[in-house]
Order: sequence, then C-alpha cells, then structure tokens
Amino acid sequence: MKMLDQRAVDMARANAKRMADETTPLIRNCWYVAAFSADLPAGKLLARRMLGNNLVLYRTPDGVAALRDRCAHRSFPLSDGHVEGDSVVCGYHGFRYAPDGACVYVPSQAQRCPGNIGVRSYPVIERSPHIWVWMGDPRKADPGLLPAAPWMSDSPDWAAGHGYMHVKANYVHLHENLLDLSHLTFLHAKTFGTPDYALAPFEIETGDAMFVVRRTVSPTRLPPIYAEPTGMAGVDAARIVTSTFVSPALSYTELTLRNLAVPQEQRRDFHLKTAQIITPESADTLHYHYTVVRDFALQDQAVTDFILGSIRDAFVEDVYALERIAQVRAEDDDSDFYESSVAADRAGVAMRRHLKALAEKERAPADSGELRQA
Amino acid sequence: MKMLDQRAVDMARANAKRMADETTPLIRNCWYVAAFSADLPAGKLLARRMLGNNLVLYRTPDGVAALRDRCAHRSFPLSDGHVEGDSVVCGYHGFRYAPDGACVYVPSQAQRCPGNIGVRSYPVIERSPHIWVWMGDPRKADPGLLPAAPWMSDSPDWAAGHGYMHVKANYVHLHENLLDLSHLTFLHAKTFGTPDYALAPFEIETGDAMFVVRRTVSPTRLPPIYAEPTGMAGVDAARIVTSTFVSPALSYTELTLRNLAVPQEQRRDFHLKTAQIITPESADTLHYHYTVVRDFALQDQAVTDFILGSIRDAFVEDVYALERIAQVRAEDDDSDFYESSVAADRAGVAMRRHLKALAEKERAPADSGELRQA
Amino acid sequence: MKMLDQRAVDMARANAKRMADETTPLIRNCWYVAAFSADLPAGKLLARRMLGNNLVLYRTPDGVAALRDRCAHRSFPLSDGHVEGDSVVCGYHGFRYAPDGACVYVPSQAQRCPGNIGVRSYPVIERSPHIWVWMGDPRKADPGLLPAAPWMSDSPDWAAGHGYMHVKANYVHLHENLLDLSHLTFLHAKTFGTPDYALAPFEIETGDAMFVVRRTVSPTRLPPIYAEPTGMAGVDAARIVTSTFVSPALSYTELTLRNLAVPQEQRRDFHLKTAQIITPESADTLHYHYTVVRDFALQDQAVTDFILGSIRDAFVEDVYALERIAQVRAEDDDSDFYESSVAADRAGVAMRRHLKALAEKERAPADSGELRQA
Repeated sequence: MKMLDQRAVDMARANAKRMADETTPLIRNCWYVAAFSADLPAGKLLARRMLGNNLVLYRTPDGVAALRDRCAHRSFPLSDGHVEGDSVVCGYHGFRYAPDGACVYVPSQAQRCPGNIGVRSYPVIERSPHIWVWMGDPRKADPGLLPAAPWMSDSPDWAAGHGYMHVKANYVHLHENLLDLSHLTFLHAKTFGTPDYALAPFEIETGDAMFVVRRTVSPTRLPPIYAEPTGMAGVDAARIVTSTFVSPALSYTELTLRNLAVPQEQRRDFHLKTAQIITPESADTLHYHYTVVRDFALQDQAVTDFILGSIRDAFVEDVYALERIAQVRAEDDDSDFYESSVAADRAGVAMRRHLKALAEKERAPADSGELRQA
Repeated sequence: MKMLDQRAVDMARANAKRMADETTPLIRNCWYVAAFSADLPAGKLLARRMLGNNLVLYRTPDGVAALRDRCAHRSFPLSDGHVEGDSVVCGYHGFRYAPDGACVYVPSQAQRCPGNIGVRSYPVIERSPHIWVWMGDPRKADPGLLPAAPWMSDSPDWAAGHGYMHVKANYVHLHENLLDLSHLTFLHAKTFGTPDYALAPFEIETGDAMFVVRRTVSPTRLPPIYAEPTGMAGVDAARIVTSTFVSPALSYTELTLRNLAVPQEQRRDFHLKTAQIITPESADTLHYHYTVVRDFALQDQAVTDFILGSIRDAFVEDVYALERIAQVRAEDDDSDFYESSVAADRAGVAMRRHLKALAEKERAPADSGELRQA
Repeated sequence: MKMLDQRAVDMARANAKRMADETTPLIRNCWYVAAFSADLPAGKLLARRMLGNNLVLYRTPDGVAALRDRCAHRSFPLSDGHVEGDSVVCGYHGFRYAPDGACVYVPSQAQRCPGNIGVRSYPVIERSPHIWVWMGDPRKADPGLLPAAPWMSDSPDWAAGHGYMHVKANYVHLHENLLDLSHLTFLHAKTFGTPDYALAPFEIETGDAMFVVRRTVSPTRLPPIYAEPTGMAGVDAARIVTSTFVSPALSYTELTLRNLAVPQEQRRDFHLKTAQIITPESADTLHYHYTVVRDFALQDQAVTDFILGSIRDAFVEDVYALERIAQVRAEDDDSDFYESSVAADRAGVAMRRHLKALAEKERAPADSGELRQA
C-alpha cells in the first residue's frame, strides 16, 4: 500500500465535500419534465413521483393539471380515482378536486362542501412533446425559464425520436457522466465508444451556471451508430461533441460528424443533438427522458429506429454504471474514502459545486420554496 | 393553488394529532384472535406474530398453549420444533417447554434441568371457531372481556362462513374504513356499492368506548351479493347497515335487508352480520379474520360460498386501498400534510381518539402491561 | 407464566452482555479466506465483500492482488473492469491501478498521471487451495499467524473435498454452533445426528484464545454418512469428536471412528477432519467455505462425492437454523429477552467472551487497524 502525501489527501477530501452528491437536497426552483405529452391521453390519470413528492397529472379543457397525489381526507392516491370534467375524483370516498387543488364536492355531505379542504397544485407548461412541472416556489414559476432550444420541441428542421429509462441513481452523477465523455472508450467500448476517444483533446468552458465541454476526435472512425446512417463506415471522419449542462433538469449533447474523405468544398456536416432530460424522482432515483434529433434522413423512420435502438444500448451501459456506483456509495464504508478528480473533471466538478450552492441557497429560510399544504 | 384560512388549517392539524394512527402504540390489554380453531390441528405448531411479538400455539390435553416463539437458549423459533405430550421441544438443542413456559428438560444435562430458564406464556381462550389470546398484563386477562355476541360462535340460528387476509396496513385505518361506509359507492362500485349509498342519511352514536354508525339506504336496488341469495334482484329494497366498533380487536357490520315490493304484513327481513376480526401483527401489518353469518338459507352451502366469494372480492378492494394509503403515508413527506375530516368521519374520529387515549393509558408506568421474560 | 428468581435473571442478563454477537465489531487483525484458489483463474476479476469492505482479487505474475473494489475517481467497482498485465483497469474512465493500489495511468491525461491517486491494497497469501487476506493493520499481517494444520492444504496423506455456502447470519453464531454439537440429535436428526449424541459425555477445555470440546459417543450406531464409506453399518462403533475454535476465521471438527465389532488389535481407526472456514461478509452475513479431509479411501472420488453431499445436506440444516435465529434476533423485541446458557455452552460462552474482548481491544485507539484510503 502506497502512502499518499497528506496535503494532497486533505485537499482532495475538502474538494469532494464542496460538490453536490446524493446527500445534497434536490433543487426545487426549476422546470422539470414530468412526462412526454404522449404519456398523458385525455381522461387518464398519470401518477409520477418527482423530487420526493407524489403527483397526479391529467388533462383539463384548459391544459394539464398537476396535483399532489394524496387525497386530503384519508391519503388515498388520487391517481387511483378517475377524471370527471376538469376534476379528479378520489376512488375511496369520492372527494372531488378542481385543477387548482380545491376540494369542490364531498358526496356524504353533498349540500355543503367544506371550504377548507384542498391539495397542493403545481404549475405546468406543456411544450410538446414535453410536459414541464415546477416543484418549487410557485411565485418563481417563470415560463421564461423553460429551455429555449427550438430543436427540442417538434421542429420541422429536425427528425426526432424519444426514449425513457428509470434509473436507480442520484441525478448529479448522471449530469457528471454527461460532462466527461472520456468514458466512451471504456464503458461504451461496444456501443458508441472508440479507443481514441478518451485520448482526444478537449476544451472546457465554465461560467456562472454554465458548463460546456467540447471534444474533437479527428481523424477517427465512427462507430456503427453514426457510420451507418451517414454512410461514413470505413472512412476518416471528424467527430466533434459539445456537452452542455443547461439546468438541474437538462443536459445537451450536440454532435457534428464530418466526412474527411470528401473534399472540403463538397462536404455537408451531419448534426445530431440529444436532450438528456433528467428528473430526480428521489435522492436515489431519477426519470431519464431523452429526445434525439438529427438534420439528415428527416423522413426515414428506419434511421430513427436504428439511432434510438443504438442509443438505448449505450444508455443501458450508463445506467448500469450509475446504479453500480450508487450501490457502492450506499453500502461501502465512506469513512476513509473521498473522490479524486482529474483535469477532465473540471467542468463536472464546477457543475457539482454550482448544484451544491444552488441547494444551499434554496434551503436558506428567505428562499425556501416550502409551502403549506394547499 | 388556493390559500386556505389559517385558523381552519391549524384546527385541522391539531385535530389530526389527537387521533391514533400507525405511530400510536398498539393496545395490549385486549383479547385478540390468533387463529381460527381449524387452523390448529392437534400435534401441530402454529407460528403467529401479534402486536410485534412472535408466538407459537399448540394444543395440549387441557386446551391451547401460547408461548413466545423463541427458545430462551439461543433464540431458535420453537415453531420449528415439535410437540411432545403437553410440551414443545426446540428443534435446535432439544430444550423442552411446558405450557406455562417453564423449561423442563435439557438433553445435554438430562439429570439436572436448570430451574431458571423459561419463555413467556400468554393466556388463551378458545371459543370455537376462534382462538383468543391476551397479549397484555396477564392479571387483567378477564374472560368476561371476550365479546358477547352469540352469533359469532357456532350458533344454530345462524349459518356461518369464514375468511382470512393478511393486510400491510395499520389496524386503525381498517377500523376507520369500517365506520364510514360512504366509501361503498366509490371503492366498491363494482362489488357491494351502489351510487346512492354515499348520499344516504346516517346517524352516529358515540359514547365511552362505543361508536356506532347506522345508515339507511331506501328505497334502493341491492347489488348481486345481496339480491341473489334473497331473491330481491330488480325490486325496491331497504338496506339498513349498523357499523359498531367493539374493541381494538373487533368491529361488527350488521345488515338488515327488506323487500319493499312485498306488503308490510307479509315481509320477513333478512339479516347478515359480519365480525371483522382485526389483529395487529405489527404497527404496519394486520391479520384480518372475518366471520359472516346469516339467518336465511341456513343449510345452503352454495349461498355460503357465494356470499364468501362476493365479500372477498370487496375486501380485496379495501385491502388495496388500505395498503396504498399505507404506502403513501410511509413514503410521502408529511411535513406539510394533515388529515382533513368531514361530518361522516365523526364516529371514526371519536374512535381514533379513544384508541389514542387507550394507548396513552397503557404506556403510563402504573399500567404498562410490560413483563419480564418469563 | 412462571416467575423466575430475580437474581438468576440478573446474572443471566449480565452474562449475555459480555458475549460477542451481531452487534460486536468484527475482528480485523486476522487472516480470512477470501476464496478457493480455483475460484480465481488468471485474467479474471473476483469481487468479494469481507468484513464490510468490497474487495477485488486478481492474479498477477507474482501472486494474488487484493484491492479495494472502488475506483478512487468516481467509485465504479474495479471488478467491473478488466485485468491488463499486473494491473486492473476501471471500466468507467479507464483509470489503471497497480497491485499496490497506486493509480498508474489516466487515459484523459496520458502524459501526466497524477501522483496522489490510489486505492487500498490488502496483504494476500495463497496457500492452496485457500487464498487468505488480511483486513486489519497491514503491519501486523504476519504469515506466521496462518493456521498451521498441514491437512488443510493439499496433503498427500489426506483425500480432500471442498464446498461453499453463503449464510445470512453473524459469524459468532456459527462458531458457537460448531462448539456445541449436542444439536446433532435435534437439528440433524435426519442427517448426521443420532438420538444418543446429545446425551453423550463431553469434556471442555478452554484457555487463552483456545476452546476445545471433545465428545465420545460409544457404543453408538453411525449415521449413513459415516457408516457407508467405512463399512460400519449396523455395528457398534465409537464416535469421538473434537471441536476446536482456531481463530475468528476458522474452526476444526476432527472425528475418529472406531469399529467396536473388530478385535482391538485388528482395528484401524478412521479419521475425518473438517476445516470450517468462516469469513464474515458483514455483521449479518458470512462466507462459509469448508474443506473436508479423510485418511481412508484416498483415491475414491465416489467417497468424496458421497461425503460432500451428505455434509452439504447437514450444513443446509445449520444454515437454516442460523438464518432463522438471525431473523428472530432482528425482528423480535429484545427488551425483555436475554440468552440463557447451560453447561454444554461453556466453551461457546468462553469463545464469545474472547471475541468480545478481541473486538474491544481492536477498537482501542492505539490498535485500531483503521487506515487512510491509500
């Protein structure tokens, strides 16, 4: 066993403590995706746990309602009831709630509904194909804080595909995974990694709440997921990847593929963008929605299916890694462990410090975002 | 989100705190049903967890013995051993215990059994078809406290059927469920509920340790469970239901069915009674025995089977609701939740306050019911 | 319910508290078997949890390496990576570790590997067929503390068989089980117990860190596991068993079988020895390796298979008992329980006091065996 320099150890330990992890409170003042629009047909109730709270969503004539999924009477989940007009009816004793959470009808005293019963309602904005919910202080639920990227939302310039996975890991570690793609060479050796990926040069840009990593792998050979739909199998190519932390709820991976075998003046770059939509379910689990778009083969469903299938294969590897890490962190004795970081982690470390600071700011009494029941 | 009147909120919150729930200690000084008589054939050991304690029951020449299911030597469950005469023999090292819990034989020192080894024994009374056990202070185990209803116990005037379910919920919520049957219209819409049930008039009678709700639904149409065996399908009927909280271990549902299509002087009412026998296994789980009797078609086993099957279908709905509520209460953040009650809850609320007071009385040092090991 | 003498109760309670159990810290300064040699082929990674720590083992040109199974970078289990030369490569970002735990290569900064990253390594000694690991203070990892018994390790004088079971119980209770074999008559009535076993005379020898029980059952009839391979079915025999606690990691059961139907001068005793190799995985689980040797029918694989099969049948009974006891101890209210011991427990009780004293000694600050990360 090698003994380490005590000063370096103390510094690493202190650094690790300043970064968000599964022990850091979740960020509430943020728009999070609760579901794809297609997950919520009219007349249906959708139960979804987000940031440790149970919600029920349903469509009203005016949009989408999101209520606490717990009847104020005896705690039966409203999602086990049914929709009636713009209301949800509890399946236990029939209490009926309006979209604003107010109880408007109690069958056993039909003539005089009590005025002081209600459940919390949450601001919702549907921007197809995503339904966004605000879990924090409703006074801060500014629609202007929704992500601006037009390609995320049913754009004619982009062909889109969508997927979902449930992950038993804290959301911070998924964000960090997405900011250091040097793991493609190892974790994704059989899917979208190549041996030269981890060795490629990269630039990191960090600012206030902004963290970007740009990596250029060139010349390289593309893995099948990209080579097949672009016709670049077996030729030299450039692969330029930009990873951007957008918010606790969102990360972008933007990819440019360039065929180096084609003379520069005849080239047309191919672009793929992935919105990695991350919704903490609890401190230890998350909903992983993703939307993948491309600017080529726009009408070709087979290309969509191929790319979605390949991405899913790779994301399964990420989920495996994140869940194994979560198990280790949960069951291993932490008293003599601290995380060690290297240069490639600079963006991830800065992002995790930002999340820790955000969480601390939200926990400050003046800005708690905590509310009474209704 | 609607803001509520702060005074009403404070009152509701204070009221909720005075009612028993899954955080309230279980009531020990009470007769509880451990099993049906038929569950305990001679020569067999029956393991049963009640009020957080593991018991083993077996038949002796003099009756039924109930001992702590844990050998005093090395904690092997006695229920994994065997019966020998009036004793139970541990399956690990052969320690033998008499019905009073005293260890009477240790094989490795056959000539000199230690005099100071024993396990706790519990008072038992079998009143067929039920075996009742007293889990509290044995000096208070008064047989006079057993429920008096003759119809519960093998009466020639009543035809009886029996059932059992294991429920992952606190017993208080099942008692409350049984005192407010307005839920029949919603939770039991497909079994024994009808749309008019929740709207029907009801009277509530509460007193010292006594809580009764009487509901008259008339005229109504009976659901198949009652219409079929009484021949009242498609005719106007009266349905009069009395729900009675008897003890922490027991609730009665007594039903009178009246055919309004028959002239008053020719009518003969039909009666069904259900003993809802509730034995907390732990704070979060319970044993649900039930005995259903009727005063018609006394010899008709097909009617017994039909009623038992229909009741089970409905009780499965109750169990579903109670277990979902238990999950919500366990996993949902309670800091901003309190129960809201309405007029129909008056008996349930009074009953829950009574259970809370009983629990507090038992926890008082002078009346603890706690005992030494043996 | 029999009331016990209060003084006897107080004494029993005080005695029980001085004995190690599942609440006692595990003993770290001891050689423990991590695996059989055959479990670790070259080029493979073997994950093993021992004493609450996750280890990864692999073969190097110089022997066997044992490292903490957690990459110092982002906690991915090294056992999910691969072996390269004498190093292990993390499967997430490719960090490479030498057998001493030092990180020697980081792909994203291939030119300048940080000097201060590493994982803990553990002393290992392979003495075929067992791989021993030292989990405590490495300065105390004296090879002279390995068990000396030559029959355990590939001896030409003995025919050997091996087995493994995972047990959900604390290791102390398995050690105690092995020191009081009076349980053979009851727990093993259908395998290697006989009715006279529990009644047979026994001697107990206890000293400093040494606990031996010798039991002579004679004349007796042997159960099939012993009668068949020795040809002693249906004849009077002597069965002499010595149980020895060797260390927290090891217990011996040594058996002499004698055919009393053969005149003394023509007799040849048969010997079987079992190394019960006990490695706590956590406070509540253990790895149970066993090596059974005999000095007869040395070349007969059918005899090996028969004995191993019979022993496994009996050990399944022990595992059942130990796991049931662990469940009882975990779920039963302990406030009014204490263990009662009898004369046959003298060695076991002394052994458990010894383990408790060892644990307390290790927890003393001057001797903690706790180390920094690397």
